[in-house]
Amino acid sequence: MREILIVGAGKSTSALISYLLDQAKTENLHLRIGDLQLENAKKACKDHRRCEAFELDIFNSESREIAVKRANIVISMLPARFHIEVARDCLRFGKSMVTASYISEEMQALDEEARKKGLVFMNEIGVDPGIDHMSAMQALNRIREKGGKMVLFESFTGGLVAPESDNNLWNYKFTWNPRNVVVAGQGGVAEFIQEGKYKYIPYHRLFRRTEFLEIEGYGKFEGYANRNSLKYQSIYGLDEILTLYRGTIRKVGFSRAWNMFVQLGMTDDSFAMNNSEEMSYRDFINSFLPYSPSDSVELKVRHNLKIDQDDIMWEKLIELDLFNPSKKIGIKDATPAMALQKILMDKWTLSEDDKDMIVMYHKFGYELNGKMHQIDSTMVSVGENQTYTAMAKTVGLPVAIATIMILNGEIETPGVQLPIKKEVYEPILKKLETHGIIFKEKEVDYLGYNPFGAVGN
Amino acid sequence: MREILIVGAGKSTSALISYLLDQAKTENLHLRIGDLQLENAKKACKDHRRCEAFELDIFNSESREIAVKRANIVISMLPARFHIEVARDCLRFGKSMVTASYISEEMQALDEEARKKGLVFMNEIGVDPGIDHMSAMQALNRIREKGGKMVLFESFTGGLVAPESDNNLWNYKFTWNPRNVVVAGQGGVAEFIQEGKYKYIPYHRLFRRTEFLEIEGYGKFEGYANRNSLKYQSIYGLDEILTLYRGTIRKVGFSRAWNMFVQLGMTDDSFAMNNSEEMSYRDFINSFLPYSPSDSVELKVRHNLKIDQDDIMWEKLIELDLFNPSKKIGIKDATPAMALQKILMDKWTLSEDDKDMIVMYHKFGYELNGKMHQIDSTMVSVGENQTYTAMAKTVGLPVAIATIMILNGEIETPGVQLPIKKEVYEPILKKLETHGIIFKEKEVDYLGYNPFGAVGN
Repeated sequence: MREILIVGAGKSTSALISYLLDQAKTENLHLRIGDLQLENAKKACKDHRRCEAFELDIFNSESREIAVKRANIVISMLPARFHIEVARDCLRFGKSMVTASYISEEMQALDEEARKKGLVFMNEIGVDPGIDHMSAMQALNRIREKGGKMVLFESFTGGLVAPESDNNLWNYKFTWNPRNVVVAGQGGVAEFIQEGKYKYIPYHRLFRRTEFLEIEGYGKFEGYANRNSLKYQSIYGLDEILTLYRGTIRKVGFSRAWNMFVQLGMTDDSFAMNNSEEMSYRDFINSFLPYSPSDSVELKVRHNLKIDQDDIMWEKLIELDLFNPSKKIGIKDATPAMALQKILMDKWTLSEDDKDMIVMYHKFGYELNGKMHQIDSTMVSVGENQTYTAMAKTVGLPVAIATIMILNGEIETPGVQLPIKKEVYEPILKKLETHGIIFKEKEVDYLGYNPFGAVGN
Repeated sequence: MREILIVGAGKSTSALISYLLDQAKTENLHLRIGDLQLENAKKACKDHRRCEAFELDIFNSESREIAVKRANIVISMLPARFHIEVARDCLRFGKSMVTASYISEEMQALDEEARKKGLVFMNEIGVDPGIDHMSAMQALNRIREKGGKMVLFESFTGGLVAPESDNNLWNYKFTWNPRNVVVAGQGGVAEFIQEGKYKYIPYHRLFRRTEFLEIEGYGKFEGYANRNSLKYQSIYGLDEILTLYRGTIRKVGFSRAWNMFVQLGMTDDSFAMNNSEEMSYRDFINSFLPYSPSDSVELKVRHNLKIDQDDIMWEKLIELDLFNPSKKIGIKDATPAMALQKILMDKWTLSEDDKDMIVMYHKFGYELNGKMHQIDSTMVSVGENQTYTAMAKTVGLPVAIATIMILNGEIETPGVQLPIKKEVYEPILKKLETHGIIFKEKEVDYLGYNPFGAVGN
């Protein structure tokens, strides 16, 4: 039997573990799931005879080493910053490793040694990053193989609430780490290329510079720019491309409303607010508005944000109960972002029956035989329930498939990797299709970067 | 003879040195002026027989030590980050020291040893910080001495162009370090207190949350909040105060126009722009705007910033020649802030005949015998020419006066100090009056923090 060590049994691991248990007999696998909470690991094992749960504190190096040493391969589903502890052990004991996280500098530094030892350290093989890389590289390489020259690549991903559970004015609920949503876009300018020109969007304009996207059967979406659109330019082989843009998908109207928080300063994560524990929701919003001896917080918000009397933006604020003078933030030394997260979690937490949805949208513009072409490729994955969420499926399945492929020697290029090689993405995308993760392509007119189809006059 | 070592002979030292040379005979002084450029030091000495110029590289510890050792007192007019080198030598050789800069943590760390050795390390004794501290403390203490209880303190300072030289649409020219103007307000939220409530303004709102100020004979000004309004709360003895606000003064309309740059992202100093050296002014502004196949940069700016056809904001942009496709930024790896500074320096550099102006405005609100009062105190200092600027006068005179007082034992409290003690501010403010640096006070109605005099209905 081949032993797979899974470190961390958080909520994103359900589909990963189910898939591996389903394959356990055929592939002759034994799973060992280690978590700080033994209960989590036990629940994940579901009494399967080929699964063993155990308590694991990854900062206890002795027990971590014992666990890594006996395994044939290791999957780390820990928060990204903790992978490195596991990775160093894998190197030491000669084990390959899989994570769904971005390659950190620390991880990258292990590349040479991993190569030398013939170990595969596969990262960025969840959904975003992961399925985005694989589906993009598949289309890019297909276009290039038939002689096309890439001129435009745009790629958008979003974790959203499924249409059947979409019942608030923001068309949004937290389907993943709320904190990442609240601070999204902070920490640096958003940089990308449009028609050969470098473009920069500062954080406070980010949510007003969206693009529209439409997906048949799912309606209109919008995308705002990621900070790192150029990060994969060379990795994808797009050094000569004219338009390169990566973004995050929301339902139309979300960004304009979110911008209200950005404008007021309510998403700032850089300072602790005075007396945040005792602060009411109303105090919180009022602390970003000028003092007035006579005017209401409501009118000050309307005036500051120029919200007309009949603007739906206002209803969105009301829905969040932002002006409530009784509800308390209740967090000591909270930054504005922490306080806002608290307020939003009251309203945007998934109910037991709610389902989530992952949406991906790629645009590929290219020149072939002197003519311009564009292919738009979309993928929508809806969660089954609160356990088999779309997020857990789209993160976990590629991780699971890649793990078995490495065990079977079907992925063997050693070193710190991400899934951009054909040997990796072709079989994985094919297997994902059988689990309903399917990209639909259609040819559209190539307009260049010109989302409104504008023509001068 | 008592020897004063002046380290650094930059443009802010003219009034300082003139004052000391004027007093040299009466006070029995000998000046030694050390600068990296011997020419600067020579020019500053003006062939005065009690003045000696020499070349001094402050990073050459040997020559720095020799200079400090023989002096009776040391004035450092270096950029603030370099004071510490001189300060450590002063400590070692038992010399008192004067600077016009904010007390850094490194400087503060010398406090105990300076106390032990009986040395006065007087800092923040220029204009802002400096004259603001002294004039505020004088009024605050006078109010408190007659039994008043402080409820409001607002303090504004600005370095501007004098009315007779004010001939551009921005009513602004660089009278001091242009870089500080371009990045003003960055690096953290502006925090202050209004009527007992903590208020926060994020950077991208800072220039839209101004207050108006009016000074007889000089017209209307506006103030935007400094980041550190609460920094001196305890030092000034204002722990119980209801309104505490510090700000920067500009002519009315400047901030609304400056906000255009902030909104577009042109003041960002956190990243280097692609190909900034070859970039035209027009390319520069266009890099903050969406690509369009058909629309002009001009229309995109108007649309993005919602500038109506007849809005003076537009003329302000035109005046800067921002849309010029031929003028190049010409700086390698320039941040947006560096590029913007270049563009502004074309237009906002003082001409030979231009004069500068320092404006200060304090508001003191207090309760006395059950009644509310307010005193507004203003100071305007206009430069004589490009050498005896208002900036050089208001920075240099308090430094010079304090230096002689320390030499004469009239200021003797040892340690790292700022000028908030009566023994310091009373005689210095009195002497400054004889040089035309005069605060005019008037009693006004106390309205609380209520700049528009609003009443609910």
